[in-house]
Amino acid sequence: MASARGGREDEHIVCGFHAVRATLAAKERVLEVWLADSRYDKRSETLRRELERAGVTARAAAREQLDQLAGGVRHQGVVARVRARAPLDLRGLEELLEGLTRPALLLILDRVQDPHNLGACMRSAACAGADAVLLPQDRACRLTPAAARVSAGASAHLPLCYLPNLARAMEMLRRRGVWLVGGDADADGATDWNRVDFTAPTAIVLGAEGRGLRRLTRERCDLLARISMAGDAAVPSLNVSVAAGVFLFEARRQRAQSNK
Amino acid sequence: MASARGGREDEHIVCGFHAVRATLAAKERVLEVWLADSRYDKRSETLRRELERAGVTARAAAREQLDQLAGGVRHQGVVARVRARAPLDLRGLEELLEGLTRPALLLILDRVQDPHNLGACMRSAACAGADAVLLPQDRACRLTPAAARVSAGASAHLPLCYLPNLARAMEMLRRRGVWLVGGDADADGATDWNRVDFTAPTAIVLGAEGRGLRRLTRERCDLLARISMAGDAAVPSLNVSVAAGVFLFEARRQRAQSNK
Repeated sequence: MASARGGREDEHIVCGFHAVRATLAAKERVLEVWLADSRYDKRSETLRRELERAGVTARAAAREQLDQLAGGVRHQGVVARVRARAPLDLRGLEELLEGLTRPALLLILDRVQDPHNLGACMRSAACAGADAVLLPQDRACRLTPAAARVSAGASAHLPLCYLPNLARAMEMLRRRGVWLVGGDADADGATDWNRVDFTAPTAIVLGAEGRGLRRLTRERCDLLARISMAGDAAVPSLNVSVAAGVFLFEARRQRAQSNK
Repeated sequence: MASARGGREDEHIVCGFHAVRATLAAKERVLEVWLADSRYDKRSETLRRELERAGVTARAAAREQLDQLAGGVRHQGVVARVRARAPLDLRGLEELLEGLTRPALLLILDRVQDPHNLGACMRSAACAGADAVLLPQDRACRLTPAAARVSAGASAHLPLCYLPNLARAMEMLRRRGVWLVGGDADADGATDWNRVDFTAPTAIVLGAEGRGLRRLTRERCDLLARISMAGDAAVPSLNVSVAAGVFLFEARRQRAQSNK
């Protein structure tokens, strides 16, 4: 049995009813499902039937075993091991954009190198309904089992795209009408996050914690935005996954308001 | 020399110009300051003079030493070791509320037991300008050195209040006109986070990840609010520090709009 901690890079642990049910949309990637042996309520019975219909066998597991597999993530008595989604290439990203029926919402991480931060950003992005997370291929961290665990299931569903050339990808996005909003707390003249129009197709570009965006990345953005801190805040910056959450849920708020 | 990792519970590491300068408001708590030996620009010269005026000696340190002290947090070439702020009791919290010149913004963590999450919540709260973070005394985690490090300096400044009786504290807050908004993703009839009026004095009450608010805590809230996830989100919930950030910055957004 694969443990959540010692997992392989091409396999992820997915926890909770919603997340496990969502894996059945790509059931060929589901390797193993565990259900709490003590749980026989309506919700778990429904899931058992759905798994059966999909031809996936669920094993009974003790709650302690599930806790260990989940590694601290909320699991509601159900945990699955799934094969990782293959990352997208630039062509795959273009196809994804062509298939969208609402304005794109993307998260670009310029040089996030901490797997914990990558996982946390994927979790925020998935909750906010982002369409994909984009990373430069050479400097970014890989989706390690630790990152996958922190992502709380997001890594198994949310498309991740490794970009051989970030500049070229940003050019492609601009050509397709995606507005490139760079998060930069220190930039002169940056727009407050709540004054940016997020209803158009948007990619939010965030840099590494403590170092921000690379100069060339910043110059390729259409607009620089800041989450303005409290006037007397003694803490200089938000964690990058929190900044991603604040930006992406502001986009969600504006889109809900304008029904997009 | 105290290292950031092995620090004592009553001492914190504070990083970055803004955070270190803010410590000088309570300079009797500053134990040690290190400045990058390679840094002689205007900003560090100004800080050197301010430290001198405050009677605090800054030691020269190599960048690697600062990196190690900061433990991954952005330090901009300056790190301080400070004595922790004494936690508030209920009376202290009442005094704090009486001294406020704008509507209170509080974060109550119902049973957050992971020090990493506590530190991350304090960081989000400090950035959003929250006035204090409140925790029940018995079930909550302590502010460990790990939590202090994750808080990125917030733990040295942001008042933390341990409550012997959460119910009584919530009653006191209500009597003082503080609106109690419970974050509950699963509650029937919860209001969307962006439809809650946060311009009045507010305490945002968040529960432990995966378990939410205790029933009695939930029943004592004036209103339940949810951060509505994307319709097809396969990830059931945000990390509690991200949820805190989204709620608190929505409050900040609304207050900026109404000039409160």
